[in-house]
Amino acid sequence: MTVSTRIQRVALQRPDVFGIMREDLERVDARVLQVAQVEFPEASSLVKDIVQAGGKRLRPLVLLLSGRSFEYEAEFDRLVTAAAGVELLHTASLIHDDTVDRSALRRGKPTLNSVLSAGATILIGDYLFAQSAMLAAATESVRVVAIFASTLGDICDGQLREMFYGHILNQPQSDYEARIYGKTASLFAGAAEMGAVLGKAPDDQIVALRQFGSDVGMAFQVVDDLLDLTGGTKDLGKPAGNDLRQGTITIPTLYYAASLTEGSTEWTRLKRVASGDTSDGTEFDVVVSAIRASGAIEQTFALAESFVTSAKMRIASLPDSETRELLSELADFSLSRLS
Amino acid sequence: MTVSTRIQRVALQRPDVFGIMREDLERVDARVLQVAQVEFPEASSLVKDIVQAGGKRLRPLVLLLSGRSFEYEAEFDRLVTAAAGVELLHTASLIHDDTVDRSALRRGKPTLNSVLSAGATILIGDYLFAQSAMLAAATESVRVVAIFASTLGDICDGQLREMFYGHILNQPQSDYEARIYGKTASLFAGAAEMGAVLGKAPDDQIVALRQFGSDVGMAFQVVDDLLDLTGGTKDLGKPAGNDLRQGTITIPTLYYAASLTEGSTEWTRLKRVASGDTSDGTEFDVVVSAIRASGAIEQTFALAESFVTSAKMRIASLPDSETRELLSELADFSLSRLS
Repeated sequence: MTVSTRIQRVALQRPDVFGIMREDLERVDARVLQVAQVEFPEASSLVKDIVQAGGKRLRPLVLLLSGRSFEYEAEFDRLVTAAAGVELLHTASLIHDDTVDRSALRRGKPTLNSVLSAGATILIGDYLFAQSAMLAAATESVRVVAIFASTLGDICDGQLREMFYGHILNQPQSDYEARIYGKTASLFAGAAEMGAVLGKAPDDQIVALRQFGSDVGMAFQVVDDLLDLTGGTKDLGKPAGNDLRQGTITIPTLYYAASLTEGSTEWTRLKRVASGDTSDGTEFDVVVSAIRASGAIEQTFALAESFVTSAKMRIASLPDSETRELLSELADFSLSRLS
Repeated sequence: MTVSTRIQRVALQRPDVFGIMREDLERVDARVLQVAQVEFPEASSLVKDIVQAGGKRLRPLVLLLSGRSFEYEAEFDRLVTAAAGVELLHTASLIHDDTVDRSALRRGKPTLNSVLSAGATILIGDYLFAQSAMLAAATESVRVVAIFASTLGDICDGQLREMFYGHILNQPQSDYEARIYGKTASLFAGAAEMGAVLGKAPDDQIVALRQFGSDVGMAFQVVDDLLDLTGGTKDLGKPAGNDLRQGTITIPTLYYAASLTEGSTEWTRLKRVASGDTSDGTEFDVVVSAIRASGAIEQTFALAESFVTSAKMRIASLPDSETRELLSELADFSLSRLS
């Protein structure tokens, strides 16, 4: 089956999980907006925009669904609080990340960093970190707070790895995976664990749901890295091949590099583009086209699929079949974004 | 009594609190160093330097002393953990602050921000925030975690206030105080509260110690703002009048401004220097000299003294007289730094 056929197949099963969970997610949104108030007129509407632009609330969704098979109703308020904390942690992290990358656009909108000074952006990110930590503390669960704090550490670790080692062209796949685990999957894993802990799931289910979250997060990031190369400005709100342009080597480029003979024309060109030794835009476009035309896209898609398959296996023993179904749909959704 | 006589008097009573608490503080230091490990060779020794350069550990000291009258031995491990968390939060906050200010020196040493990229500095600050949050979580006290998170929020709020409103020349003294409460006193207050909570102090003592911490923090910041004007590069590791140079109006300048007639030569010169409308270094030096020669220094010292007096009154009913004495010495120490 070709990639496009497989994508089509997944797209046909477009999940209903967002519909079923809509009201619960609206509660999370309300909580996020309530605490993300900034009283500085210069920044308040910008922060509100950023928080409201906030994508599909995937992390809150993972958290809520992880508690849904267990004491969901009784612990609903804490679950919503933790989910809001997770979403806000994600937002704060994006704000700092955009400053680090000096990105001008995110989801097609100007980043905070492109409107305010870098200093203000750093402090507003810190402020939102603080608000997210307060939400974690408001669950009154020491275990949730510990997961929250260690997740923040993992996120920074992943981002630092990307900064220090992300440009290396012959990095092993395991380095790439450790990096995206930190920067993306750790928060999905943490969200799932928090939801299971707050829902009072048994220990084996907490572990299983955490692994589910991690796998889904990995799939999302792999797909993101694929979209970065195959998508365009319109879809992503940023230029195609942005990672490579910034000197960050992601998995499609790694697969492509591995397929080349060292010293060949293609290999030399890739090396020049990846190291930023060329300002020739045409050369850059040639490399992006070559990656797109290579088997690297197929290979990357297969990697994302393998994480989705693994995610579904993790939750095979989840007691509630409807929740299991919704979680599976969410896992599939990571792939359907490619359609 | 003149300022210099009063300073001399305080200096004669140089506290022994650092000696008595030395071993306990060494335990805190060891804990800080243990968690502030960064595995990236490019950053690890820099982070170690910054953590070790870390001044006098005033915040851990406030925390430990606040628990010392109560269940100190039984809760010692948690107190050390929380104290390490507070110190690391302070360090992370300094790192971001130096990036915001683009400072090149801190305590006479190069800032992280002057050696690494702004991006790496942001992420390393975030990473240390995460480590400090993990220490707070490791106390296993939901209350300590909540204090920790809300303190981080207060710190960011103070820093944002300084960024957005710190340049206003006719700001009321209450705005200045709200700002330095956030950026400095909140962490002293939080440290005192955490220590009292972990030491299982009765509620009224927790409140009293928190207020003590706040007052001492206010005194320290007022003295810092005084030293910024009266000290030189050798003492501070940064140029004199640095705040004004950056366009931040602190209390000595506010007092000086209030003493001038609007529209007078002095007033116009101050306005020009404060707004950054002049690049004339001589004009800047003239203003700094004028502030130094004015009654503003005396007034600022009196303000710091009033906070110290208030701090001592807060702890009048603390049960253990030796600890009360040590806390008083610590409060006095804020003034003795002027000698």
